[in-house]
Amino acid sequence: MTDKSFKIAVIGCGVVGSGVADILINESEKLSKRFGRKVELKAILDIRDLAGTPYEKYAVKNPGDVLGDSEIDVAVVTVGGLDFAYTITKKALLAGKCVVTSNKDLVAEFGRELESIAYDKGVRFLYEASVGGSVPIIRPLRVCMGANEITSIIGVVNGTTNYMLTRMEEDGLSFEEALWEAQTRGYAEANPSSDVDGFDPARKIAILSSISYGRFVDYKKIPTKGIRKITAEDIAMADALGGKVKLIAGTKHNGKKIVSFVEPMLVMKTSHLSSVSGAYNGIMIEGKYTGKTFFYGIGAGKLPTANAICGDIVELLMNAENDAVKPGFICEEAEIVPDDSACRYYIRLDDIPDGEFTPGLAGLKMITCGGTTSFLTGKLTPAELEETVKSLCEGFGGATCGITLKVIE
Amino acid sequence: MTDKSFKIAVIGCGVVGSGVADILINESEKLSKRFGRKVELKAILDIRDLAGTPYEKYAVKNPGDVLGDSEIDVAVVTVGGLDFAYTITKKALLAGKCVVTSNKDLVAEFGRELESIAYDKGVRFLYEASVGGSVPIIRPLRVCMGANEITSIIGVVNGTTNYMLTRMEEDGLSFEEALWEAQTRGYAEANPSSDVDGFDPARKIAILSSISYGRFVDYKKIPTKGIRKITAEDIAMADALGGKVKLIAGTKHNGKKIVSFVEPMLVMKTSHLSSVSGAYNGIMIEGKYTGKTFFYGIGAGKLPTANAICGDIVELLMNAENDAVKPGFICEEAEIVPDDSACRYYIRLDDIPDGEFTPGLAGLKMITCGGTTSFLTGKLTPAELEETVKSLCEGFGGATCGITLKVIE
Repeated sequence: MTDKSFKIAVIGCGVVGSGVADILINESEKLSKRFGRKVELKAILDIRDLAGTPYEKYAVKNPGDVLGDSEIDVAVVTVGGLDFAYTITKKALLAGKCVVTSNKDLVAEFGRELESIAYDKGVRFLYEASVGGSVPIIRPLRVCMGANEITSIIGVVNGTTNYMLTRMEEDGLSFEEALWEAQTRGYAEANPSSDVDGFDPARKIAILSSISYGRFVDYKKIPTKGIRKITAEDIAMADALGGKVKLIAGTKHNGKKIVSFVEPMLVMKTSHLSSVSGAYNGIMIEGKYTGKTFFYGIGAGKLPTANAICGDIVELLMNAENDAVKPGFICEEAEIVPDDSACRYYIRLDDIPDGEFTPGLAGLKMITCGGTTSFLTGKLTPAELEETVKSLCEGFGGATCGITLKVIE
Repeated sequence: MTDKSFKIAVIGCGVVGSGVADILINESEKLSKRFGRKVELKAILDIRDLAGTPYEKYAVKNPGDVLGDSEIDVAVVTVGGLDFAYTITKKALLAGKCVVTSNKDLVAEFGRELESIAYDKGVRFLYEASVGGSVPIIRPLRVCMGANEITSIIGVVNGTTNYMLTRMEEDGLSFEEALWEAQTRGYAEANPSSDVDGFDPARKIAILSSISYGRFVDYKKIPTKGIRKITAEDIAMADALGGKVKLIAGTKHNGKKIVSFVEPMLVMKTSHLSSVSGAYNGIMIEGKYTGKTFFYGIGAGKLPTANAICGDIVELLMNAENDAVKPGFICEEAEIVPDDSACRYYIRLDDIPDGEFTPGLAGLKMITCGGTTSFLTGKLTPAELEETVKSLCEGFGGATCGITLKVIE
C-alpha cells in the first residue's frame, strides 16, 4: 500500500452524484485493498445544504475548495446542463485533475475542446456514464474494439422514450398518456423535448460515432426525429406485423462519409433490439472483424449510472495519466450524409376520405387497426419510398401520409 | 509521434495467430496514427514453414528470437495446449515483456502464477480473448464493473455445443448426428470431450469468477456436466414448454462462498440467453449497482478472437506497465459450495414399462413426445427434486430418470 491516497471530489449531489458518493463510501475499502492505495471520497460540492444527509461531512460550497485542493486527483462532474458543468470541468482539467462525467450534453457539445485540454495537460477526461447507463459501451468501443473497423452502430439509447413506447405497447396508451405517466413517475422532465424529440439520443450517437470513427460528429448535424407522431395504432400494427416501434439512434461508416440518424423505426422481433423494453438500453455494434455484438442493460438511474462513473474511476486508479490516444473528438469533423440505402418501410395513411378505392398495391402488405390503414413495403430507396407514398395517397382519394418508419430486420 | 515503435511477436501462426497477424498488418497504420507511435508486427514464431504465406517475412523458428529481442514489447501467445504455451508465456513475462493470450486452458490452469509473475515484473498479462470470442467481457468486468459487487454471472460460453444444440433444435438431429456435423465443419475436435463434457466452459467461468470475486476459482472444483445425455426429444419438449436447452456456465456469490456450475439447462424464451444461437456466446452479469447487463457476440473463430487480442494490444499501447490491480488469481482460493437454492426442473423419464400408471402428479406438468415422457416441476430444492424423481420413477412402474435440467426463467 503506497502512502499516496487517491482522492475524489463529486461536483453536484443530485441523483447520480449521490449515487457515486454512496458507492465510493460503501466500496472504498474494497477498492483500497485491490489497488494498494487508499481510495477516498474527499469532497462533495453542491449549492444545496447537505446538513443532516449522509454527505454532510464531505460538503463544500466553494468551487475553489475542489479546484485549489492539490490532494484531489479526480473531479466527478455529475451536474447537468452546460454552463457550470463546462466551466468547472475546464478549470479542473487545467488544474491538472482528471475529470469523469455522466453529462452527455457536456460531452457532445464541448467534448472536442475538453478532450484536447486533457490531452495537452496529460490528464484524462472519461465519460463512460454519458451513454448507456449501466451498459459498458465507450470502453468496449475504444479499447476492446480499438483495432476493429466499426461499420455500424444501432441502438435504443433513450430510456424515457423506450419506457413510453413500452407502455403504449403494453396498455395501448396514446403518446400523450404515456408522456403524462412518464412525467408522473419522474422518468420524463416537465419539458420533455430532449427525450421525445430525439435530441438526447442524437447526442449519445454523436459521442459513439466520434469514438468509433476517429472523427468529430456534431450532434446538431444529425437528422433527428422523435416519437411525437407515433400512435397507439402504429404500435398495435407493428405488433401484428411481428415487430415493435423503437426510437433508434444509429450511425454507419461509408468511407470518409458518415450516415447518422435518430428516428423511430419498426424493429422486427428477429432483432435483439426488439427485446429492449422499458428503461433498458441496447446497442448493436457491427465491425469488420467481429460481426455483430450486442450490449444491454439498465439505461439510466442513480446507481447504474454511478457504477459507470466508478468504472472510470477504476480506470484512473490503473492509469491516471494521458492514455496516449488521440481521441476522436480532436480530429477532423466528419461529413454526415443522408442514408440512401434501400430498406422496407411501414407507411401509415391519415385522412382517408370516405368511399371505395382500388389503388395499386403491388408489393405492399396492407393492414388496418381501429380505422387506421397502414402498409408494409418491400425494399425501397428513399426516392422509391417518396413515389410509393405519393401513389398511395392519390390512390386513396387524396389521403395524407401520417408517418413512414424504416424497418430493421 | 515518438521514435520508440511498439513491436509485437505472435507465438503460433494457427487460426487465431494468423488472424492477429492479419489485423496487425491491415491496421498498423491506423493504430500508429492514433497512438502517435509506430505499431508493428515484428515476428511470428512457428515450427511450421511459413514460406509462400503472407507471414513469411515475419517468420522465426527459435523462441530465443522473440525472448531475446529487447525490441519486442508484447508476445501474443496463440498456441493451444499447456506445455509450450506455459513455458513461453512465463519466459516472456520474466524477460519483461507483456503477454496477451487467447489460451483459456493456460489462463485457467496457470493464470494465478502468471498474473503473479507479471505483477512482480511490472508488466501485464492480458487475456480478454480467452472468454467470449468477440464479446468484450473481461475488461467490462474488471474495469467498468470494477467498483460493482457482482452477484451472479450466467452464460452460454461454448460455441461448439451451442452450435450442436441449435442444429438439434432446427433439424431434430440426435446428439451423435450434431456432433458428427460439428466435427465435419471443423467446429468440434476429433476428441470433443473438452466441449461436450463442459470442461471448456468450466475453465471460462472459472476465469470470470476469479476476476469478479477477487478470489481464485479452480475450474477443476466446479461441478461440470456436459450435453451427452440431451436427446432430440428433450429439445422438442423444451420448445413445447417455451424454452431451449442451452449449456450454461454460471457462478453466484454468496458471502465468502461461491456457487459455480456448468450444466445443460432449460432456458425459457423470456431470458436473453435463449436468443443465443449457433456459434454465438451470450453472458448475463448481475450486479448490486447495475441489475442485469447482457453481452452477446460471435464466440470463437479467427477474426473475432484475434480482434479481442488486438483490443488487449490497444490497452497496452495506452498503458504497458503493471496496472496496479492485484488480480483475482493471486488472492486466496474461493470455497465452492453446491447450489441449494430452489428452482423449477425439467425431468425426463426413461424405460417406462408398458402398462397403465396413475402416479401422483401434484404440481407437475406432464408432456410427451415420440414415446418419451417428461415433466416440468414447480420450484424445488435439490432434496425435493430427489424426492420428486423417486416418486415419479416408482409411480411409473420402475422407470428410470433420464435427465433433470434446471429451468432459467
